[in-house]
Amino acid sequence: MNQNSSYDDNNVFAKILRDELPCFKIYEDDYSLAFMDIMPQATGHALVIPKFAAETLLDIPADMLSHTMTTVQKVMSAQKSTLGVEGIILMQLNGKEAGQTVPHLHFHLIPEHLAKLKGHSSEMGDMEQIKALAEKISTVL
Amino acid sequence: MNQNSSYDDNNVFAKILRDELPCFKIYEDDYSLAFMDIMPQATGHALVIPKFAAETLLDIPADMLSHTMTTVQKVMSAQKSTLGVEGIILMQLNGKEAGQTVPHLHFHLIPEHLAKLKGHSSEMGDMEQIKALAEKISTVL
Repeated sequence: MNQNSSYDDNNVFAKILRDELPCFKIYEDDYSLAFMDIMPQATGHALVIPKFAAETLLDIPADMLSHTMTTVQKVMSAQKSTLGVEGIILMQLNGKEAGQTVPHLHFHLIPEHLAKLKGHSSEMGDMEQIKALAEKISTVL
Repeated sequence: MNQNSSYDDNNVFAKILRDELPCFKIYEDDYSLAFMDIMPQATGHALVIPKFAAETLLDIPADMLSHTMTTVQKVMSAQKSTLGVEGIILMQLNGKEAGQTVPHLHFHLIPEHLAKLKGHSSEMGDMEQIKALAEKISTVL
């Protein structure tokens, strides 16, 4: 990974990118990784992250962001076709002052209505269910 | 604007893009437009839209999305430097099932903590204050 000067290399997503921590992977290419959020705000909540050491949206160059957004589109499309959902929330928090909990740029893709969303990073999900959802979504990716 | 087949040309943002409705503009280029949300979920709430007839994130080609995301980055940076805020929420709702109210792809940029967000499309803001914020943010754009 390229490195942004203020980036903290020890965050959870950096460890996932280095294979030091596991994840329920749903998609990977040279520029990005998608996996399930283990504290889901709704069933099927996924995350997309760039393979680039950026903390917020302001720390990533346009070409890397473009690759990441293409993955966001792919995962969103896969959620719709495999989970039978119509509405998907895209959310991305910049800075702890916005509620960002992991200091590596990440896009939340949450198949739910905004009014029904569970709290952010509030509660661990059911790991068996999350694993099954990851397998389901990744079949078309 | 290019046209996606299922796109509804009569939505509010399409009218803003055709200059049939006014907006508090903060930035414009050949591919995108940024303006203030008149039902702000926090002070300084802005919107970025592509000049492309897409309803959701799945309806826009990668190159147009890339242009739009560059504008998202510019506006976010301007909000931080002119409003003295640190945290910014990026939110983008896909489909009425997710809470999308205007069927033209739009990115919300909300300078607030997720836990303190006001309701989405729930209440008109103070137009004089929104106009002043638009002028402030646009000074660096």
